[in-house]
Amino acid sequence: MRCGAGIDARQVDELAINIDPIQAGGRLTADAMKAVIAYGDGYSVCDNCRKPNRLDYITKPPIAEFHRDLALWLNMDSARVVPGARRGFQAVAHTYVNKGDPVLVTSLSHYTEFLAVEDAGGIAREIPADEHHRITADATAAKIEEVKREFGRGPVLAFIDHVDYQYGNINDLKSIANVAHQYDIPVLCNGAYTVGIMPVDGKDLGADFVVGSGHKSMAAPAPSGVLAATAERAAEVFRTTTIEGDVTKRRFGIKEPEMMGCTLMGVTLVGMMASFPQVKERVKHFDRELANNRIVIQALRSIDGTIVLSEYPRKHTLTRIDTTASFDTVAKAHKKRGFFLSAALAEKGVVGIIPGATRVWKFNTYGMTTVQAEYLAQVFVGIAVEHGLKIS
Amino acid sequence: MRCGAGIDARQVDELAINIDPIQAGGRLTADAMKAVIAYGDGYSVCDNCRKPNRLDYITKPPIAEFHRDLALWLNMDSARVVPGARRGFQAVAHTYVNKGDPVLVTSLSHYTEFLAVEDAGGIAREIPADEHHRITADATAAKIEEVKREFGRGPVLAFIDHVDYQYGNINDLKSIANVAHQYDIPVLCNGAYTVGIMPVDGKDLGADFVVGSGHKSMAAPAPSGVLAATAERAAEVFRTTTIEGDVTKRRFGIKEPEMMGCTLMGVTLVGMMASFPQVKERVKHFDRELANNRIVIQALRSIDGTIVLSEYPRKHTLTRIDTTASFDTVAKAHKKRGFFLSAALAEKGVVGIIPGATRVWKFNTYGMTTVQAEYLAQVFVGIAVEHGLKIS
Repeated sequence: MRCGAGIDARQVDELAINIDPIQAGGRLTADAMKAVIAYGDGYSVCDNCRKPNRLDYITKPPIAEFHRDLALWLNMDSARVVPGARRGFQAVAHTYVNKGDPVLVTSLSHYTEFLAVEDAGGIAREIPADEHHRITADATAAKIEEVKREFGRGPVLAFIDHVDYQYGNINDLKSIANVAHQYDIPVLCNGAYTVGIMPVDGKDLGADFVVGSGHKSMAAPAPSGVLAATAERAAEVFRTTTIEGDVTKRRFGIKEPEMMGCTLMGVTLVGMMASFPQVKERVKHFDRELANNRIVIQALRSIDGTIVLSEYPRKHTLTRIDTTASFDTVAKAHKKRGFFLSAALAEKGVVGIIPGATRVWKFNTYGMTTVQAEYLAQVFVGIAVEHGLKIS
Repeated sequence: MRCGAGIDARQVDELAINIDPIQAGGRLTADAMKAVIAYGDGYSVCDNCRKPNRLDYITKPPIAEFHRDLALWLNMDSARVVPGARRGFQAVAHTYVNKGDPVLVTSLSHYTEFLAVEDAGGIAREIPADEHHRITADATAAKIEEVKREFGRGPVLAFIDHVDYQYGNINDLKSIANVAHQYDIPVLCNGAYTVGIMPVDGKDLGADFVVGSGHKSMAAPAPSGVLAATAERAAEVFRTTTIEGDVTKRRFGIKEPEMMGCTLMGVTLVGMMASFPQVKERVKHFDRELANNRIVIQALRSIDGTIVLSEYPRKHTLTRIDTTASFDTVAKAHKKRGFFLSAALAEKGVVGIIPGATRVWKFNTYGMTTVQAEYLAQVFVGIAVEHGLKIS
């Protein structure tokens, strides 16, 4: 099937169980799919844009209400939609970071956090993860002191991942934020793997900012995301424009420079809104997701030599695994080499791991049914048995 | 019909002739609509992302080829997709503008160009339009000299609208760029109303950058757009990351900080790609669009007191009109006041002008058939006659 312009219709999630680490939380709901069809056109949410002419003031469709709900849901004071979590990072970095300023990230931070620091002219300093691949409050305090010695002043901002993208481990954001606040450092909670997946209470976490990803974890089209802030920080990052035309004396009302005015004008925003009721509901049932994850993890751990690199027991469905002493031993002798695993999985209707990977790889069980989890568990064990690996 | 979450299905372009000034060029093609359905999911274009892991290197779907085609089509050396034209402005401003630097815009510039200047810390200086609401090379030279007197140095960047958003007038970008280049000022051609609407040859225009809007003029979902650059400027605005993790010594390959890494990961990009063959074709037939526009303009001008504020004869379908001495005289006595006009149009199946506007307003005839243009002409004259206005 073709969409025109040499583009094959994508039918990944229709035809297979998709365990891609970054795709699991972004699959559209049926409501989002309907919204996507109705709001495909550019500027389709602008039909009823009236003064003061800003996206988050539009009431039909109920965009203003959605913004209020988003902030409330994250227990923050203000929220804006952004074209991806990274654009939230960019807006915050650009507000607080000047050339040469040190900024805290972590040794598990996503590259987009580094780019946000770089783009603002800042210098990234990583809080090292501990031996369990988690960022601790103690390590944060030590790093702040180290930065103070190096720069003669503390970091101006801290990007802390609520759940990191490499191991899917949960960081104790509350304790970390507590330490950062003792040094007056604003804390951005990167919730790309939590907002829309599990409950996030920004105030309880002590976050100055909560950033979420629509296409990663809120069942929304790309690029979409949310940037929420406390009232104090909202006044800074969502400050309104002050520039004036020298000839026309034009000013630009309540547009926000860090948002570049309006942000998501059609399919991305309406898709996010349409999925929101189900997203709000699903975060309450993250325990079911963890139960499904356990079924798969148990099966993988039963294959001799397989090591779960993520914290264990799992508290998130994104998991990093080391199969160097199991599937990779098969790969060494297999005519397809490392590709044997992804090929064997595909044959059984499972997709989403990097083709060729048999040593360290990631997968995400988010959104599957228990029947699918049991099937996936069986598939992993079946492939292992078929290739002569031992099961304990 | 409902999409869920309190969102009514939008059926504006299905049920009416839409003359909204900003929506006309963004309506999806049927191919884009198919693509939107197949690529609704977040990260749906990332299935076959392989090293070096950057959006514009993906070959399935043919994203790499699309990027090459885009650059070629605009006769520029490099192109990237961005989440809206404004994000292209932001990337360029952020590359060239430091705090306190003067930046040229025009007295007809869009607010997003001002926000890009403000966000980069620059100071906007407007080239005044002439009495025909056009920006000239002479006015550009005069403004540059004025800026040099005021700041002791020239502007570091010039944002010039190929066609401005207020009057839909075409500026002589070639002559303007020629002047700017004599002062070594890079020129960004804002093609939000031309790229995807009429032929744009970046090198011929002398542009260092060409920015286009997907959702405004390329029949693509929002937010989407293109930033194209000459080879010299591409090396600057698309420079790759140099930041490094101090603990992990991680570096981030060929990701581009001004793009924040990858930009459009799903429905927005694939929609843009799916429409592209038709967009490339339609720009060759802009004369047909102008012929349709003429039919409507002639009808409006036949209504006594109506003045076309845009340059005349029209060279673009976006048109600004003054009906203070025609429709507004009706509004003064009508029980619906200014709303009589939009209501009367809606009754005849025409939507898209600001409700209540009867003095100065804008409309866009882009994309209509000749039959629709003739019908629209008839509707305007019919409403005028019905309300006792004279027709000449």
